[in-house]
Parts: sequence; structure tokens; C-alpha cells
Amino acid sequence: MEEEKKFTHLSELGEFGLIQELTKGLKTKQESTFLGVGDDAAIIDNANKLTVVSTDLLVEGVHFDLMYVPLKHLGYKAIVVNLSDIYAMNAQPKQVTVSLALSSKYTLEAIQELYAGIEKACEYYGVDLIGGDTTSSLKGMTISVTAIGQGEKDKVVKRDTAKVGDYICVSGDLGAAYLGLQILEREKQVYLENPGIIPSLDGHTYIVGRQLKPEARKDVIQVLQEIEVKPSAMIDISDGLSSELLHICHASGVGCEIHERDIPIHPEASEQALEFSIPPTTCALSGGEDYELLFTINKEDFQKVDAIPGITVIGEIVDKEKGCKLLTPDEKSYDLIAQGWNALLNKDVE
Amino acid sequence: MEEEKKFTHLSELGEFGLIQELTKGLKTKQESTFLGVGDDAAIIDNANKLTVVSTDLLVEGVHFDLMYVPLKHLGYKAIVVNLSDIYAMNAQPKQVTVSLALSSKYTLEAIQELYAGIEKACEYYGVDLIGGDTTSSLKGMTISVTAIGQGEKDKVVKRDTAKVGDYICVSGDLGAAYLGLQILEREKQVYLENPGIIPSLDGHTYIVGRQLKPEARKDVIQVLQEIEVKPSAMIDISDGLSSELLHICHASGVGCEIHERDIPIHPEASEQALEFSIPPTTCALSGGEDYELLFTINKEDFQKVDAIPGITVIGEIVDKEKGCKLLTPDEKSYDLIAQGWNALLNKDVE
Repeated sequence: MEEEKKFTHLSELGEFGLIQELTKGLKTKQESTFLGVGDDAAIIDNANKLTVVSTDLLVEGVHFDLMYVPLKHLGYKAIVVNLSDIYAMNAQPKQVTVSLALSSKYTLEAIQELYAGIEKACEYYGVDLIGGDTTSSLKGMTISVTAIGQGEKDKVVKRDTAKVGDYICVSGDLGAAYLGLQILEREKQVYLENPGIIPSLDGHTYIVGRQLKPEARKDVIQVLQEIEVKPSAMIDISDGLSSELLHICHASGVGCEIHERDIPIHPEASEQALEFSIPPTTCALSGGEDYELLFTINKEDFQKVDAIPGITVIGEIVDKEKGCKLLTPDEKSYDLIAQGWNALLNKDVE
Repeated sequence: MEEEKKFTHLSELGEFGLIQELTKGLKTKQESTFLGVGDDAAIIDNANKLTVVSTDLLVEGVHFDLMYVPLKHLGYKAIVVNLSDIYAMNAQPKQVTVSLALSSKYTLEAIQELYAGIEKACEYYGVDLIGGDTTSSLKGMTISVTAIGQGEKDKVVKRDTAKVGDYICVSGDLGAAYLGLQILEREKQVYLENPGIIPSLDGHTYIVGRQLKPEARKDVIQVLQEIEVKPSAMIDISDGLSSELLHICHASGVGCEIHERDIPIHPEASEQALEFSIPPTTCALSGGEDYELLFTINKEDFQKVDAIPGITVIGEIVDKEKGCKLLTPDEKSYDLIAQGWNALLNKDVE
């Protein structure tokens, strides 16, 4: 009985009690945050810049599995995936709203863990949490985050402005987050079949870390600004390189050629892919959740960009008629195909 | 077999196919909409006004029951409840984002119905749909809407600025939406027990309409502007009069006295309440979902506000020490108590 006392059920608190608990220590940092949580709406003083808005919905059982995702990591990641979209516009995130639908299985302490992750991400990226909605759900948890950023008219970068002859660049490395997920799923199965065995993630720290605690590439946006390079088009890689590159090409009315050998893949990811008998390139092309930046640059900017550590040129924008191609080391050419969310839909159980 | 051909399963379309279907006819109307759907984020040109942001999460089985809520009405209402929050700041809504989590039981045609309602509301209120997220859910539908509006620094009205001596006003009438829901629930039970019987909503058109197709009080904000009255505090009534009035009083550090006989209740609502053996006042105080505006005004503005049809003065802001009271016609005094969402949490089935 005393054990139970440690947890506070949400039904004891109600919506307003929960909101008060979660937001009581909240301080705003952004000058533009005129009014934060606590009224019908939050207010942003925008001082004549562009407001950039992005939103994402995360659903328990679809986007995350609490058997292996710690709530604090989940909160952190929920913020990061939205900020990534704002950086991908070459803008600076300033505020976020967080809405939660929660079933009665969650306790205050569990939601405080989630919030600790949310606040940690807000702290790290310097954004203010300014509002949201908290409600009940019949089953599981749904998290909806909206990020609001500021950009300047001549600096914001869209996805429909890539030009023939531009180089195609990516930040970081690709495919690791997908492989981290496969490891977590495998260890979950092992655990479910033999609850006595403690799952081991030894030797997988990089790829598991990429899955559980991704970061948005704020640093890349900053460096590009410092070297005065404005990408001609940009997008963040959430659904795999193929899907994102096809978005840029379709929106810009161009084609592309990328070189398989130039796609950056971490050694631990390559090794794990081969162990799973998946070509590492497939993980990079279709894996998703890397939250790296994919962007195109004018050829004139090549020297400057090439000097940045962690940025790789992987190909070139070509005429639309040439299609969107992957060139292999043995000079074969394959059409890029978008995978991604379709696969998810098939997992639907209702 | 041919019957089945009429519907398109979402798994055939995938996320991008669905987004394309839903947004293909979308046009923007607001001058401030710099970039709408189709990139990592939408862009708003804010011309140095305040940006006002509000967000709501609607969960199937908690906030709506598709057995009696037509999808088109649901889409309409999902927008309206958010715009209501923006108007309650004395601001003008300009843009909305809409995120959907959908289980595989939904077809494209069903989601198009939902979207038809969303677009109708956007059309009527003159706001632009600028983005969102579309994903799968394991069970049912979740809708997350974020509304973005513009306000002017000297005109935005918060909830923490009511002053002792101010009059308390409400727009329209209260309690009807709650009673409409009770009628719909009753007819659902009748139908479930006797599927042969066609539920009848005769004689309940007003209260059922208030539940299924609420409107945000854009007109009230406009009239207040025309007569040059700025409320001293304002909130929209989504959780019942008691709960909202307590929000204003707690935030402003004041008390209140409202007169039971002055609370506006529609005759059809009164009649239905009595038939259910609930005091009509209880429905107004705790019913919720009316989406009317509750605001306080300086006494000097009384003549001007009293001349507006459909605005009722129901009481006065008093010293904090006097508490928050309801005065009955027989001169008794009761403490106002917030109900609302707590009741919802108890409905949780997991």
C-alpha cells in the first residue's frame, strides 16, 4: 500500500492541477515571448520578421514504444524533431507548444519525466514552451508539438528552389537511427521471450543513441551563416534520404544524381546493417529519423562548404529529364524510390 | 466487390498521397501567409504585430463520438474551438495547422468529409490552413489544431486584468451544447438497443446544433471594436461558466458575484434540463462547449455594451476576500466550483 503512495494518479489532479504541476517552474527566455502559458493563447512579439511554424504528432505504439524509450528521452525527441523542421527553413526556433493526450495508466511522476525531457530540449535549444493542451485519451499517449521560429525574408530556404548544377550536401551520417530501432526491437523480443535476461546494448551505443536521443542540426545552420552560404534548397531528413531528396527534386522541378560511395554512414551502422543482411545504403536511403539536413548549394560555394567538418557532398542536381538516380561504385544507375510512412500504415492493428 | 471500389483505403495512398489529396485545392487568403503547406514549416509575415497562438487536441472516444458526430461537423468544430481562443484574446485568427492521427479503418472519402468541414470553417472565418502532420494511429482518430492570430499590443486582452467594480458579461446563451450532447447520447443508446428505430432529434434542433456546429464569436469581437470597448479581461467558455470565471478571478486576484437569474439560457435548453431533472443553471455553470465569450468591462462602458443584442451583464467583480459567489433569486449565496475536465478523466477506460 505504501508503495502505491509514491505515485499521483492524474485523475486526482485533473487537467488544471496537472498543467499547474507541469508548468510551475517554467520561465521564458526569448525576448519575443510576450505571454507564455496560462491564457487562451500565447502571444509572440514578432518585430517584423517572418514567423515559421511546424507541427508533428507522435502516437504511442506507432512512433514510440515505452518498453524501450525512456519518457525523458521521448520528451526530448518530441521537441527536437520539430525544431529540426524550423532549422531546415534556415530559421531559428523560438517557441514551442506541447499538447498531450494521456490515458489513465499514466501517473504525474511519469508525465513529469516526459516534461523533464521537454524542458531539457527547450533549455538546450533556447526555446520557450508557451502553451498547449492536456486531455485524456482512451488508450496510450499522443504528443502534438508545434514549433514557431523566426526567419528573415532573404534568408529563409524552401525546398522548391534547387537549381540544375547545384551540389547536394548532407550533414552527419545516415541510417543509424533506423538500425538503433532494429536493435531495440530485437532486444525487446528477447526480453519478452525470456524476462530473466537483461537486454544488452553493448557495442550499439552509437546507433541506439541516434534513435533515442537525436539532435537537431542547429550547429550546421550557424556555420552556414558564419561562412555566408545560403543553401539553394533545404529539408530535414526524417523519412530517409530518398524520400527527402525526391521532395526537393519534385518541388524544384529538377532531377538528381547521387553517388552511393559518398553517402556518409557510421562504421557501427554499416557493421550492424551487414549483420542484419541489409545493405547499409538501404538504411541511409529509407531508414528515417536521422534528423540531419539535406541541402543544395551553388557550385561556387563548394570550397567553403567542403571545409566544414561533417558536411558531405553526395551528388548534383541535374535536368528533370535525367530522373532521380543513385549511381553505384560499379557505375550502375538506379531510380530513387520513396519509402517511409507507407510501411508504417501497414502496421496498423485496428 | 464493386461496392468496395467506392472507397480508397489510406494504406493505398500513404502519407504523401493523402496530404496531396487533401491539400490539392487549397488556396491561401491571408496577406500574412507567406508560405503555406508543402515545406518543412509554413511561413508567416507578421508586419510587426503580436502573434497569438492557441492549440487543442481532440481525441475520438473522449471529445467526439463518430456514431452521432458527422465528420464534416467534426472538422468544422475542430477549427472553431481553436479560433474561439484567439478571439478570446481580442485578436484575429489568421492561420491554422491541422494534424491528424488516423487508424486504418478510415478511408480517403471519410477524411475528405472531415477536411470539407475544416475548409468550410477556414472559409467562413477567413483563415488559411498552412500545414500539419498526418500519421497513423493504432486506434481511432486524434485531431490536433493550432491557431495563429494577430493582435495589437494595446488591444490584446488577457484573463489576469479584471478589476474590482468591473461588470461581468457573457455573449449568447449557456448550457445548450451540454444538453445537446445528452440528447445525442440518449438517442445513441436507444439506437444501440433497438437498431430498427431511427433516432429522432425533433424538438431538439437548437441544443443539438449548439453541440454539433458551434461558432466562435467573431461578431462579438467586431462589435466591441466598433463601439470602442476594450474588455478588461476575457476568456472563452469551453469548460462551463464556473470554471472560466474562476480562471479570470484567480488570475486577476479578485472575487466575483453573479446573479443566477441573469445567466442567459435558451428556452429549449431550460426545458430539456428540467426534463432531465437537472437545474438549468447547473448546465450553464458546468456544461461546457458553449464557446461563448466571458469578459469584464469597466462600469463606464456599461451603456455601450448593454446596447449590444445578445450580450448579458451577469454580475460584478468584487474584492478577493468576498470569494466567488452565485446569488440565487431567493438571496442565497453559493461558492462557484469548477467542474469540467476532471469528470472526463474518470471516463477513461484503459
